[in-house]
Amino acid sequence: MSEDTDPSDDTNLFPQRKLFADEAFVIREAVSRFAPSELSQKRGVVAGPGDDAGVFDCGGPELVVVSCDSMVEGVHFKPEWLSPGGDMGGESVGAKAVLCAASDIAAMGAVPQTVVVSAGLPANTSQATVKTLLDGIARGCESVGAVVIGGNTTSSPAVFIDVTVTGGTVGRNFVLRSGARRGDEIFVTGSIGGAQAGLELFENLPEKDDKGDVSSGLFRDRAYEALKKFRLPEPKISVGLALCGIATAMTDVSDGLLMDLGCISAASGVGAEVFIDRIPVFDSSLCGRRSALTAGGDYELLFTAPRTRLPDIKEVSKKTGVKITRIGEVTGGDSVRIFGQNGEVPASEFGAGGFMHNGKT
Amino acid sequence: MSEDTDPSDDTNLFPQRKLFADEAFVIREAVSRFAPSELSQKRGVVAGPGDDAGVFDCGGPELVVVSCDSMVEGVHFKPEWLSPGGDMGGESVGAKAVLCAASDIAAMGAVPQTVVVSAGLPANTSQATVKTLLDGIARGCESVGAVVIGGNTTSSPAVFIDVTVTGGTVGRNFVLRSGARRGDEIFVTGSIGGAQAGLELFENLPEKDDKGDVSSGLFRDRAYEALKKFRLPEPKISVGLALCGIATAMTDVSDGLLMDLGCISAASGVGAEVFIDRIPVFDSSLCGRRSALTAGGDYELLFTAPRTRLPDIKEVSKKTGVKITRIGEVTGGDSVRIFGQNGEVPASEFGAGGFMHNGKT
Repeated sequence: MSEDTDPSDDTNLFPQRKLFADEAFVIREAVSRFAPSELSQKRGVVAGPGDDAGVFDCGGPELVVVSCDSMVEGVHFKPEWLSPGGDMGGESVGAKAVLCAASDIAAMGAVPQTVVVSAGLPANTSQATVKTLLDGIARGCESVGAVVIGGNTTSSPAVFIDVTVTGGTVGRNFVLRSGARRGDEIFVTGSIGGAQAGLELFENLPEKDDKGDVSSGLFRDRAYEALKKFRLPEPKISVGLALCGIATAMTDVSDGLLMDLGCISAASGVGAEVFIDRIPVFDSSLCGRRSALTAGGDYELLFTAPRTRLPDIKEVSKKTGVKITRIGEVTGGDSVRIFGQNGEVPASEFGAGGFMHNGKT
Repeated sequence: MSEDTDPSDDTNLFPQRKLFADEAFVIREAVSRFAPSELSQKRGVVAGPGDDAGVFDCGGPELVVVSCDSMVEGVHFKPEWLSPGGDMGGESVGAKAVLCAASDIAAMGAVPQTVVVSAGLPANTSQATVKTLLDGIARGCESVGAVVIGGNTTSSPAVFIDVTVTGGTVGRNFVLRSGARRGDEIFVTGSIGGAQAGLELFENLPEKDDKGDVSSGLFRDRAYEALKKFRLPEPKISVGLALCGIATAMTDVSDGLLMDLGCISAASGVGAEVFIDRIPVFDSSLCGRRSALTAGGDYELLFTAPRTRLPDIKEVSKKTGVKITRIGEVTGGDSVRIFGQNGEVPASEFGAGGFMHNGKT
């Protein structure tokens, strides 16, 4: 491999910043090609590509929700992260693969139930690495209450872990991205920017011992929390569930708040206004409000609801112990606009194109 | 890349012959780690890892069956196969990914219904390649009657397509690998060796034009059929379905007949005897009987059933138009033994270890 900086470099660790050139094209093509049809109706499909997860009816009292997510060596994690031992090691790679896929289920307002895992493993993968990956998958499943029911392994030049999670709705309730209405308020759970701060801290760690152990007091607690948020995101399952019947549209903050809000905007055919000062930042010494708008990987829930449901939303927050913050409102038009203390901030300040679609089809 | 022959070379196009060293270890670990539990019972899991697919009960009249399968650049296909145009092109890569995963559903005696696709795509992937892959996925889905309901794209150093198929049982019937009983007969559908012959033909094709079009009369029809069997396997869905209630154990022939029979033997805790002369070979001029025992990729069904069900099996064959051949019988013990015209042939003649587990967990 050459040492040159390649503009198509695949080793960026925050993939939403360097998706391959035509990702928006893939999604557009897939969504139009696999649009509802006579066959999809016959197969019980309730929601197809274009949301956090697909939904189908299998004739039971509840609906089945399905989504997948991948972690790829050199893109989502560095090869050395797979070395066993220490909670910064390979265990978090396997766990995170499950947690990210489960977050899609949470974003539908459903409960993760079963998991199938596809693993691509190079010929020289050690038994210790395999065990560590499986430990992580087990840990991820345990934390979301899902069970592994199948999988597949194959040779691959680079390690990849693709996790498909199926979930169940409670009753037949779920929340799509497409229900936001003009006048709705926009909310986000928890705080934003922690995962990105964690990634940056992790990349600038002082030299680690073999086990990659950083839990030894090197960091202030808050920084350690940021690392944890990057390594082991917590899908907001209870909150998502409680928001069924309240939220009009919902998604998770995987690719950055503005980008994910752009998905709700596009799916619902509405515009949105976001107020920078309202963004609940993880820790202002680790992440500014403006960078929180494009920071990905927090796996919080972003949703819209009518103003009249504010008391219900407060109740959900109280019941689940999860902070919920109002950050803006749904408008007419079709663009996401950002407002700071001195008025509107041009979307162009937040990166080319602003609100690309994320990687879900 | 160096020109040396590397024992850990990942570019072999018949992955079952060069799985990464410890695949059996992954499967053993995963099956024991994700064994039935109180939680899996609560989640409605009927069959967990260790079979062609997982099965769960979502409270409806039918059960849901889930399996995944991957195609990886350099392992299952060459990069140039992704170039669009011609039916040897990228379309068959996308289609085959769906067909192979659907074959797992067929091997459970269930019907494919929904698909989610995870794609790993390098930064330089062209729109034409994306379209061709999607064309193939659509073609694969169409041929098995399934619909795409979601997916995910990510950057990746090499192209991979991981397809998860969900299926539905008819009634609550399905067939596991674990039900073979001593005295049962062993059967296989269709013929064996075609896919491997197709691969070999394909690798030795005269120089192709840009479109990779080989349908121009270069080959005898039978060779073309072999190529087709390699490129676009046909999951035996109707036969699988018809065998519910008849077959005691079933799997698909993905990794080679002996290896797949080894899986039934291990899961059922029985031995097996196979008679080489009975193996239905695709075309004896393209593939010998002995090599048919280890040839993978045919995606035929391999199953066991009591002798008393022979009339029913004949009826299934007649009804579905698919040839079914009796190739051996289930015995005591725990090993697969092979018999030729001159008596037993040592398993060692068929490769190290003989009957490795395949890639399913």
